[in-house]
Amino acid sequence: MASAFTDNNNVYASKFDKGHLPLPPANKLAVVTCMDARIDPAASLGINLGEAHVIRNAGGRAPDAVRSLVISQRLLGTREIAVFHHTDCGMLTFKSEELHDIIKKDASPEAVKAADAIGDFLAFPKIDENVKEDVEFLKGHPLILEGTKISGWVYHVETGKVSQVV
Amino acid sequence: MASAFTDNNNVYASKFDKGHLPLPPANKLAVVTCMDARIDPAASLGINLGEAHVIRNAGGRAPDAVRSLVISQRLLGTREIAVFHHTDCGMLTFKSEELHDIIKKDASPEAVKAADAIGDFLAFPKIDENVKEDVEFLKGHPLILEGTKISGWVYHVETGKVSQVV
Repeated sequence: MASAFTDNNNVYASKFDKGHLPLPPANKLAVVTCMDARIDPAASLGINLGEAHVIRNAGGRAPDAVRSLVISQRLLGTREIAVFHHTDCGMLTFKSEELHDIIKKDASPEAVKAADAIGDFLAFPKIDENVKEDVEFLKGHPLILEGTKISGWVYHVETGKVSQVV
Repeated sequence: MASAFTDNNNVYASKFDKGHLPLPPANKLAVVTCMDARIDPAASLGINLGEAHVIRNAGGRAPDAVRSLVISQRLLGTREIAVFHHTDCGMLTFKSEELHDIIKKDASPEAVKAADAIGDFLAFPKIDENVKEDVEFLKGHPLILEGTKISGWVYHVETGKVSQVV
């Protein structure tokens, strides 16, 4: 819980020696991946501090990362994007309409209105296909810079392994 | 660069022993923080694999995390949110209108239209105040569950330290 952060951080900060890294990512790379608690992008991909932007949301969905990617590319110089989805993802377990139904049943009229404004909760039924879809989405998106190198990957929560899809 | 992921990951996967962690975060916690390359949330906050959702976007902005937080709370049981912004954030260096101007100058009419659809790029001028704003935003949001414990923090990229704002 957040109440442990200060104590945990004291240990980290006492050994910290990366205080002068520049703001733009050294590897000109942005990673898009899921918020899932079983994923540690830095450790599992060998990303060192200062090397890459890491954008995380429910599912690691590209359509929900566009604002961040525009800032990453146009203001901070990244030119490569790696999209990761993962096995046993929560997004495989429901349909957007079902979450809307839960909110309609449990929550206030204001909540239902706010959920309607969100619209699609971006769940998906198949991992590999959705990785490809998200890569295609970015390749065809007018705000993503031409010439951006874009790859799509799956992280396997059972083994800690990654595999490239596209 | 992403081409190094497979080799880096082989090392990680060869020592991986957390293959049977459950999908819902053990600490019922969601962290919202910036995509900044100089932040390693797991290491700096002492979050172990399986304990917390980590949502990251440009600025660590709560308004851009609502879809993910709804899924985190209603489908995966989290009941606490910690919002982190950080010193030397890229979001302090520009105004949303300036980014729109860059896109208008450099990019296609389709890109301008897509940027208009994004609207506010969610830049902010002061760290502490914006942390408070984002915490208030979540406390007042109809889709965030009543009784959610919400805290606001700053991560200091120069020292690796965290400080609680609210």
